[in-house]
Amino acid sequence: MCLYPTEHADLAMPIEERYRGYLDELVGHRHLVPTGVPGVYGRGTEFERVIERFDALVTRHGAALAPEVMRFPPIFNRKHYAKIDHIRNFPDLMGSVHTFTGGDREHREMLGRFERDEDWSRDLSASEVMMTPAICYPLYPSATGTLPPGGRRVDLQGYAFRHEPSVDPARMQIFRMHEFVRLGTPDEALAHRDHWITLGQEIFHSVGLPTQPVVANDPFFGRGGKVQKAIQREQNLKYEFVVPICSEEKPTAIGSSNYHLDHFGAAFGIRTHDGAVAHSACVGFGLERVALALFRTHGLETRAWPREVRDVLGLG
Amino acid sequence: MCLYPTEHADLAMPIEERYRGYLDELVGHRHLVPTGVPGVYGRGTEFERVIERFDALVTRHGAALAPEVMRFPPIFNRKHYAKIDHIRNFPDLMGSVHTFTGGDREHREMLGRFERDEDWSRDLSASEVMMTPAICYPLYPSATGTLPPGGRRVDLQGYAFRHEPSVDPARMQIFRMHEFVRLGTPDEALAHRDHWITLGQEIFHSVGLPTQPVVANDPFFGRGGKVQKAIQREQNLKYEFVVPICSEEKPTAIGSSNYHLDHFGAAFGIRTHDGAVAHSACVGFGLERVALALFRTHGLETRAWPREVRDVLGLG
Repeated sequence: MCLYPTEHADLAMPIEERYRGYLDELVGHRHLVPTGVPGVYGRGTEFERVIERFDALVTRHGAALAPEVMRFPPIFNRKHYAKIDHIRNFPDLMGSVHTFTGGDREHREMLGRFERDEDWSRDLSASEVMMTPAICYPLYPSATGTLPPGGRRVDLQGYAFRHEPSVDPARMQIFRMHEFVRLGTPDEALAHRDHWITLGQEIFHSVGLPTQPVVANDPFFGRGGKVQKAIQREQNLKYEFVVPICSEEKPTAIGSSNYHLDHFGAAFGIRTHDGAVAHSACVGFGLERVALALFRTHGLETRAWPREVRDVLGLG
Repeated sequence: MCLYPTEHADLAMPIEERYRGYLDELVGHRHLVPTGVPGVYGRGTEFERVIERFDALVTRHGAALAPEVMRFPPIFNRKHYAKIDHIRNFPDLMGSVHTFTGGDREHREMLGRFERDEDWSRDLSASEVMMTPAICYPLYPSATGTLPPGGRRVDLQGYAFRHEPSVDPARMQIFRMHEFVRLGTPDEALAHRDHWITLGQEIFHSVGLPTQPVVANDPFFGRGGKVQKAIQREQNLKYEFVVPICSEEKPTAIGSSNYHLDHFGAAFGIRTHDGAVAHSACVGFGLERVALALFRTHGLETRAWPREVRDVLGLG
């Protein structure tokens, strides 16, 4: 699923100050542009260049799998959302897109509320779409049916949304992931997950990020979520690549490699060539988090980064 | 503002059939991937490659302006949304992002409605963000204050959202624009708009798209909107580059070059170096629409496109 942070960060004062300190530096260097909403930023020239170059590096490594390339937009079908248990497991992170469907009279009423500074959002109706919480979600419903022999490998890149406002620059509400998804037998899915635990480490180390792979869990909601977190960890389904950004004690996940069992295959009727329910796995690279880790590790000016890192990224 | 289509398309049968026909061809060639929502598609390998190459072409032309490069995500601050008159002029196109902010008990109640197939969307609250209706909107609030001498030039690319479900493949609900924005004096803004009317034509013609620039207007909402449409046309503020995609009689806008007067400068307190309210202009290229026009004009297989077009786009 490539939901990458494990737990909501503990915003005790010292670490919150470190978050603010790094955020101020990033804004001062025009890497991030504040928008007045915590976790929603514009990206500056050099920050974006680093993201593009790391994205291209990951694409080159993934090309060895000869994947199909698909790109989904940051919204997806509300009916598909209803099938993936997100409303049960991560309701606090959801983004539901609402719109205005009335006529001239309803419009005047809504404008009246808008002008009186009252809540006009309840004049809206739920649209057909939700914000995409993980960029591989829209892929699975498009794969309903029988996979070709050998299954499928897909290269994805796009924006994911999670409603979790924070001063931690690494906890954005909207950010890009580059993912490689495998659909196939349990063995094929597991092999993909494990291949990328190794390859992911190599990629991160090649740009000077000393990541560690750790068993992790998604941030399941509420009291009931505690059990699910424990089960997920016990089954070793999710590995995160963590590296310190603002804190040595609380390193940040900048990527993850995940085995979904038959979760998506069962939800969307995806079958392997021999008729079994398909299993899936995906690796995800959090592009903004990788850039934040690079700027933290190597400094705020790319021209001062180690020669080897600049060469690997093709920064010139 | 780069709101590009002028009017809601007339969906009389003959043209609707032509829309469906082209959409079926695009899906058959895996250029677009249906998601079950009209106007929301995944993009296939070759479709995306064409977009990337056209995007790079536009970037090279824009680089002559030595612009700052900024990238904003597909959501922006609700408070900024409230300042740009979109709720007055285009309420039917808006996307308001709502989320769940309750605890365990409220969650159980919402899940009950979800399971009984009742409307659970009213258990949500408006979040701090709206979908971005035009990709230059988030730029202006970030430019509040005094511009440097000579103003600013900014290169933007990203997703815009418009709620207008349609079978016309060119009328997507979520699509990418590449824009070049000018902030400065009235003369600087107008010169930018006019420069790009000429350059935009050259770029489109270089890839074999016989665009025409036409005076246009945005799709202002409702009865009151008629006056605004007339005023906008009378002032010659908006030029669209149109080319036939599914219809000779109703050519599609695949880009536009717009002069905003001091609309954004006044709304967000942007001033020129000598203290006057800043004016602005932008040119926008609709990347998916350009790809749709290219596939329609040159055929569904890029390898059969004219040599010259392949060379200009670097398609190999």
